[in-house]
Amino acid sequence: MRDQYQQQLDRVLSELVEMTGDVRAALSTATQALLEADVSAAEAVISGDLAIDEARERIEEESFDILARQAPVAGDLRMLVASLRMVADLERMGDLSVHVAKVARLRYPSKAVPDVLIATIQQMAKTADEMIAAAAEIVATHDVRAARELEAADDDMDHLRRSMFRMLLGDDWADGVEPAVDLALLGRYYERIGDHAVSMARRIVFLVTGQHPAAV
Amino acid sequence: MRDQYQQQLDRVLSELVEMTGDVRAALSTATQALLEADVSAAEAVISGDLAIDEARERIEEESFDILARQAPVAGDLRMLVASLRMVADLERMGDLSVHVAKVARLRYPSKAVPDVLIATIQQMAKTADEMIAAAAEIVATHDVRAARELEAADDDMDHLRRSMFRMLLGDDWADGVEPAVDLALLGRYYERIGDHAVSMARRIVFLVTGQHPAAV
Repeated sequence: MRDQYQQQLDRVLSELVEMTGDVRAALSTATQALLEADVSAAEAVISGDLAIDEARERIEEESFDILARQAPVAGDLRMLVASLRMVADLERMGDLSVHVAKVARLRYPSKAVPDVLIATIQQMAKTADEMIAAAAEIVATHDVRAARELEAADDDMDHLRRSMFRMLLGDDWADGVEPAVDLALLGRYYERIGDHAVSMARRIVFLVTGQHPAAV
Repeated sequence: MRDQYQQQLDRVLSELVEMTGDVRAALSTATQALLEADVSAAEAVISGDLAIDEARERIEEESFDILARQAPVAGDLRMLVASLRMVADLERMGDLSVHVAKVARLRYPSKAVPDVLIATIQQMAKTADEMIAAAAEIVATHDVRAARELEAADDDMDHLRRSMFRMLLGDDWADGVEPAVDLALLGRYYERIGDHAVSMARRIVFLVTGQHPAAV
């Protein structure tokens, strides 16, 4: 009985890790759609979000099933509640990837990102991807050392967003209001994806160490 | 024993409702700070967010306490997990109010919102406030009829945001890039506050009716 219970718990965690892979793929495709004005890539991310939503529902139902049947206590209880929150983080990252894809689709056949900011967006996408990967590793291994790198990546994201704003609002900005508005929102989407990765990692760090990190 | 348990559950819900009042106050003060370039109002929202974060922690701990001690099943279990999510929605609405206040502080002593968009921001703030109030009513009464009004208010918010974008990106926009970027982000913050209110309401609707509304 106890073994079966442990297996169910482990399955929830491994499904969460699998879901991070789907989210990373969605974000990568959305970024490609954005930078290459690839509307079919954008459509793939938008329609593919259904699968991420379904994964959320499945993991939620499994977590509720364990909660209701096994009445777990202490650590397991908190882990299950953390899973319910992490799955919500992941669904939200999927939604934010859809937002990125929708900007690509809205501006197609033009490119939404002026040349001068392509490298910044690439770097934001790379940083967000690394943050999701680090969060997945922490969920999979409960090795909280990766959390420190994740916080450093969060600082990188912050710097990237500030440097983007300096360009948008600087005297040299020659692309006008529309791309500036798009990029302000895009910067926000990538930043929020990173925030959700930090949030996932902090939930595990709290469970493992008992230290309550600052709220994200 | 059962009575005490029911009292604990009721207390969690009434504290959630109380927290909606704090969030409404934060949003109202943040909007005033924004429209009147009132930096002390902005500072009050920013420093006051700590109390909202503390309310979240308190309600979370109470919910965990009930989960661990009483091992609730079925409806009560789902209500407690829903409470843990609603409290996260509320904390996030507080954070978004802080974002609004920070725009006010960043542009002080100037006003971040050009005259031509003051009415739109007022309307967005009013709509968001009504949405939080409706969500609170649904949490307090479990009367899901208010959910329909809430979905209508969500449509209003969507229209407001679209009309704002038409102005920002229209030929008549004479205020340049910086206010356009501020307003694009402000529109997003108000919209997300509304989304979280819808999300809270849908959790209760699901518990009461068993109907899974579309994910927010």
